Amino acid sequence: MEEEIFEHGHVAALLKQAMRGLASSVSLISAADKSGARVAMAATSVTALTMEPPAMLACINRNTSSYPTLRDGADFCINILAVDHLPIAQLCSSGAQGEERFANGLWEKDARGVPYLKDAQAAIVCTQSRRIEYGTHDIFIGLVRQVHLPREIDPLVYVDGSYRAVHADPLVK
Amino acid sequence: MEEEIFEHGHVAALLKQAMRGLASSVSLISAADKSGARVAMAATSVTALTMEPPAMLACINRNTSSYPTLRDGADFCINILAVDHLPIAQLCSSGAQGEERFANGLWEKDARGVPYLKDAQAAIVCTQSRRIEYGTHDIFIGLVRQVHLPREIDPLVYVDGSYRAVHADPLVK
Repeated sequence: MEEEIFEHGHVAALLKQAMRGLASSVSLISAADKSGARVAMAATSVTALTMEPPAMLACINRNTSSYPTLRDGADFCINILAVDHLPIAQLCSSGAQGEERFANGLWEKDARGVPYLKDAQAAIVCTQSRRIEYGTHDIFIGLVRQVHLPREIDPLVYVDGSYRAVHADPLVK
Repeated sequence: MEEEIFEHGHVAALLKQAMRGLASSVSLISAADKSGARVAMAATSVTALTMEPPAMLACINRNTSSYPTLRDGADFCINILAVDHLPIAQLCSSGAQGEERFANGLWEKDARGVPYLKDAQAAIVCTQSRRIEYGTHDIFIGLVRQVHLPREIDPLVYVDGSYRAVHADPLVK
């Protein structure tokens, strides 16, 4: 086991390497603009922010094709994926754009027109509460207005450059 | 498979349930105040924010014992844990406080006095860049100034109320 310490010039490259090891659930962030045109993107930079008020946070690169819809203030859904959604995750992080990304999956729209994945492990519909610019990304804070919990927990996880499942048994000390 | 939809009054309880299924790596956030007193806490609301500049984000409850040190502007380290760090994760989310949480683990201090876990899967030392209050939590943005990458990827993951390992083999379509 060898320790490597690097200084600032190399930091971004090293941080990318470190982030390969930060395991996280895969979510799809879905939204529709005022004309009803839908966008969806796979995201791993999604986390719970608070329970009072119930709020979620997602970091989105401004270069992504879904970004303009979110920047314009659209409500959005954070769809936490299960293992069997692997093909949908791949489709929503591929070269497919816009409506093409909805070709696969049980997509529905809620009463306000927000697309959500009906059989997501959890689908968390949010109203935009705050948007904070930082570097190449925007931090979107969504106030949760509805939660769909259709099924058991079996999360699709992304780590070390590939999609994985989590062991069913807890670790014991 | 039954779908359940609830409205605003129940949203926080449902969001907690949904968050049980959001798998994430376990990190320890460590820092020291101006007197050198160390704090550490287990956290799962940690994510990469940008690579330009290299920056990380962590959401911290203002009620936690480590919070005042961070609020006062201390630099901090995000120590991403591996599976064999389970006892350290448990210690840093237990009733132990302050220095007691450093009883276990290969803790060192960097040149500026920031404590980091020498054998963490990755230890990411950050200078505080921004702090944003939202509800019960603060969002801390840290500009990454050093990354320690001592070992292979074998992340400790928290999901559905327990610590888990990730399957070594990628899922294939």
